[in-house]
Amino acid sequence: MTKVLLTEVALRDGSHVVAHQFTKEQVRYVTEMLSKANVPFIEVTHGDGLGGSSLQYGFSKVHDIELVEEAAKVAGDSKVSVLLIPGIGTISQLKDAHAAGARMVRVATHVTEADVSKQHIETARNMGMETIGFLMMSHSAPPEKVLEQALLMESYGAHAVYVTDSAGAMLPSDVRDRISLLRKNLKIDIGFHAHNNLSLAVANSLVAIEEGATRIDGSICCLGAGAGNTQTEVLVAVLERMGIETGVDLYPMLDLAEYVRNDILPHPQDITTGSLVMGYAGVYSSFLRHANVAAEKVGVDARDILVELGKLNVVGGQEDMILEVASEIAREKVGKI
Amino acid sequence: MTKVLLTEVALRDGSHVVAHQFTKEQVRYVTEMLSKANVPFIEVTHGDGLGGSSLQYGFSKVHDIELVEEAAKVAGDSKVSVLLIPGIGTISQLKDAHAAGARMVRVATHVTEADVSKQHIETARNMGMETIGFLMMSHSAPPEKVLEQALLMESYGAHAVYVTDSAGAMLPSDVRDRISLLRKNLKIDIGFHAHNNLSLAVANSLVAIEEGATRIDGSICCLGAGAGNTQTEVLVAVLERMGIETGVDLYPMLDLAEYVRNDILPHPQDITTGSLVMGYAGVYSSFLRHANVAAEKVGVDARDILVELGKLNVVGGQEDMILEVASEIAREKVGKI
Repeated sequence: MTKVLLTEVALRDGSHVVAHQFTKEQVRYVTEMLSKANVPFIEVTHGDGLGGSSLQYGFSKVHDIELVEEAAKVAGDSKVSVLLIPGIGTISQLKDAHAAGARMVRVATHVTEADVSKQHIETARNMGMETIGFLMMSHSAPPEKVLEQALLMESYGAHAVYVTDSAGAMLPSDVRDRISLLRKNLKIDIGFHAHNNLSLAVANSLVAIEEGATRIDGSICCLGAGAGNTQTEVLVAVLERMGIETGVDLYPMLDLAEYVRNDILPHPQDITTGSLVMGYAGVYSSFLRHANVAAEKVGVDARDILVELGKLNVVGGQEDMILEVASEIAREKVGKI
Repeated sequence: MTKVLLTEVALRDGSHVVAHQFTKEQVRYVTEMLSKANVPFIEVTHGDGLGGSSLQYGFSKVHDIELVEEAAKVAGDSKVSVLLIPGIGTISQLKDAHAAGARMVRVATHVTEADVSKQHIETARNMGMETIGFLMMSHSAPPEKVLEQALLMESYGAHAVYVTDSAGAMLPSDVRDRISLLRKNLKIDIGFHAHNNLSLAVANSLVAIEEGATRIDGSICCLGAGAGNTQTEVLVAVLERMGIETGVDLYPMLDLAEYVRNDILPHPQDITTGSLVMGYAGVYSSFLRHANVAAEKVGVDARDILVELGKLNVVGGQEDMILEVASEIAREKVGKI
């Protein structure tokens, strides 16, 4: 079996959990430990990627580029990765990140909008970076659509394409259907990025590997948005038990998990009812607060709003639809009385 | 597909988490809410079962029988269950529990010692109780051995036999092998009880159902020993998404989860490195403290001790072997220098 290449995202997806307040010291220490444990890729960016530091997404304590620079100093044989969401981050910022030492980029788009990644993927590839396409909210499009979009990213020059379960909404069968279809039709590597809202992150990662994915994301102590990601140290232990090679050493990862737990984690990343409803409904965790406000205002159950939003396949930026949906539910409720 | 019958174990396995200090009020409230949500079986006992309240296992705040009585008052159509580990609990205590309103018992033995359950299963069956055989540490015996022992429990009159992953050590394939073999060879129902040490509790429960298990254990907010059990409210949401019928209502379970989180849980049940190592090694969580003490004393890594104990298939009561194993590792270490 091919070796599975892990990407640690605690210093990027985990940035959400600490309100983007990572310090240089934290980033340096975690990167150094990950490198010693032989984790091949280490992602370091604002939770919403390069340029995410803003009024809308929350300001970082330390600028992305400085953090990348800090990580690159101690990354050794590991490659520092950045996330780039076209529209939030720019090609100019990507060049700065490359100059600061980033050697991988994940160009992330909504699962139906891969076409906006063309220029970014081409530029990264031309700079000699490991270049990954990252299809967010992949649960919300049928497998054929995910394939169509992945093929676009492949045609732009990506070295790999990720199926990204941004809302932690995928069942094992959802993962199986998407990864197996991609594996049959793509020449490049396939990756999988999970969230743990349905407590299936590790298991879904195993399904992805079974179907041919060779790149898997994890975050130490689940440090990530919503219920967090695939818990890296758990995944490493499970893959070791299964005889699937990652090259990553378990004990240093356990030691690092102790550090993250004691020195970074503001609260343990268990599955709250809020996170669960996000995964059940299939919407971004950023919708929860808005749904609660709308529910209060209109006098309906926030959970019903979220489930309805999931059916409508809302995406980030469509938060204005929440009140509309809430009002519709309220009207239906009155109609039933 | 057959309906899956859930047993909620937060008021029994979760008793470990609160050092067996459940109050009557907590037990009454949780039982009432579970009954309203249509959970068919609700287990209420000391974490180590009837008679567990002791110097060795920790004293309960309120006597088992009183808690069962309290739960039975508000259980409605749900059945109150008790755990009985022969050797810790007695037939006389089982009769008391039955008189107090318990209508189900799970007679639990180590996976290789089903023969000690004969009298208890027969007595329970004769009293008209729902009678379940519970094979603990099922990961530590090969599928054929688990089947042999399950057949014994069936022959004693059990209505169902559980494959119990006490250490949270099973991989999905371990579950599949055991449940499918039992399904092919038993006439009675098959159940599965997971712990989440490898973050696989929900996924393993899905595999068990796929292979024919129709009784699944869960605990609200993961409230249980080690990394906790299959998070019930998550399982209910996932099964609903999959179209597998449980009869349990999701929203009341979410409301109950909020209560448990705010009023009972001393700390969120995430997967600590301690729990992970238990699941990785395949030993009871009660061994962790002893291993740490021995590691300190002898100057070796506690994780190496636990992995070695797992290979030796140690069971509860063999804690005296820990120092021996630690010393052996220390001797080998010296030999290597």
